[in-house]
Amino acid sequence: MLILKIGGGKTINLKAIVADLKNIDQPFIVIHGANALRDEIAQKMGHPTKTVTSVSGYTSVLTDQVAMDIFMMAYAGLRNKRLVELCQQNNINAIGLTGLDGRLIRGHRKKAIKIKTKDKIKLIRDDLSGRPDKLNVDFLNSILAMGYVPFITPPILSYQGQALNTDNDNIVALLVKELSVKIVIHLLEAPGLLKNINDPDSLIKKISQKKLEFIEKTYTQGRIKRKMLSVRQAFANGVKKVVFADGRVDQPISQALKGKGTIII
Amino acid sequence: MLILKIGGGKTINLKAIVADLKNIDQPFIVIHGANALRDEIAQKMGHPTKTVTSVSGYTSVLTDQVAMDIFMMAYAGLRNKRLVELCQQNNINAIGLTGLDGRLIRGHRKKAIKIKTKDKIKLIRDDLSGRPDKLNVDFLNSILAMGYVPFITPPILSYQGQALNTDNDNIVALLVKELSVKIVIHLLEAPGLLKNINDPDSLIKKISQKKLEFIEKTYTQGRIKRKMLSVRQAFANGVKKVVFADGRVDQPISQALKGKGTIII
Repeated sequence: MLILKIGGGKTINLKAIVADLKNIDQPFIVIHGANALRDEIAQKMGHPTKTVTSVSGYTSVLTDQVAMDIFMMAYAGLRNKRLVELCQQNNINAIGLTGLDGRLIRGHRKKAIKIKTKDKIKLIRDDLSGRPDKLNVDFLNSILAMGYVPFITPPILSYQGQALNTDNDNIVALLVKELSVKIVIHLLEAPGLLKNINDPDSLIKKISQKKLEFIEKTYTQGRIKRKMLSVRQAFANGVKKVVFADGRVDQPISQALKGKGTIII
Repeated sequence: MLILKIGGGKTINLKAIVADLKNIDQPFIVIHGANALRDEIAQKMGHPTKTVTSVSGYTSVLTDQVAMDIFMMAYAGLRNKRLVELCQQNNINAIGLTGLDGRLIRGHRKKAIKIKTKDKIKLIRDDLSGRPDKLNVDFLNSILAMGYVPFITPPILSYQGQALNTDNDNIVALLVKELSVKIVIHLLEAPGLLKNINDPDSLIKKISQKKLEFIEKTYTQGRIKRKMLSVRQAFANGVKKVVFADGRVDQPISQALKGKGTIII
């Protein structure tokens, strides 16, 4: 099994990615984002995306009910269905699913976000987000056994039946934990993982498993830290190879499988 | 098997409908619209819904690529996923699907719409719409056999792999043709079918099958005409009862099953 994660950046080449899916030689599941599209729609709808920074210094998108409406439009609606349409044009029989459908992915809702305003600590309680921790394995296996390709996107479903925003890296981690996954490919808006995020020539070509923990501890950027953690967990769950590769180029999957990008084995 | 069609009007009571699903005593499939929501989003996005009237006098929504983006946001995104979320809150394990997913519903794209401008006949070729004529019965039966409730919405998939807008009555007709359906319930923004569309007291309580063709021929309103045609086809395909009932009230499904609205048997 291969897991393909497609980033939600504006310059990700969705046509090239979908046209390249036929070169995957094993069953696969796709997880995709749509953050740039969501921000664009939110702007047009007059409800721009808001972010908050918690007292522990972690910045995240604030998803209230109106933001969740827009989230559903962008992720489950426009991006997911255009991807499924592209797949059908390329003879890939995709099925688009959120974590809500068939209770595919459940998780616990974050209770509150603690933020610091000018003079006091405030609790934000209307944020709809959480961490996925339960997969409907039977449903996903049935879909795969019938020969369909699942295209999964948030929201996920809370145990109280609410739609929740979540980090796609956490969905990947859950799939890796529950299924027998050998390869994980992350397609990004960069040539791979970079030593210096502002220098596209600073590509890290290879990382050994041993170095993962070291990088996780030394990197100060939250996203890289979390990615390294998820990679470590992936290996602990039996994954043999993780690749971070460029999602903007032609044949991005074939390139990633041939060794372009950052490879962790 | 029961088919429940939920109209896309603004005053349809989705919460009441979903809370009432538990009173259906047989397997069922839901088809839903979102036209009012689509128009609202289209307005906010600065691309208001356009309609065209063909030379034969038939008015329809014009779905170009931007309108299809908005269509996906409204139907497959916001409405479908909020309905699935509501279902999960009511312990109904729903799966939201469009005709694109798993090639569930295919159809032929309308070639062009002939319209009359001031002084000439013009052909509109960028309309993405069509009539559904092929159902992936195996996929739908598998979903039902696993105990999930399909919540189906357009777009459907053309034979060239394009997303197409379509009339939900035609999707109902296709399901009735391909599956063993006994009851069809249409939930509307009216107490049922009305003799006079402007008079809510003019409810037609019962229509015999014999009268269907007569009504179909005498009614001048396009929508009623098409509905009567679809009802006639439903009976020809083995349906025993068709109900048009109020989708704005409490317990709308139970009410429809108890004989409220317009019953055709």
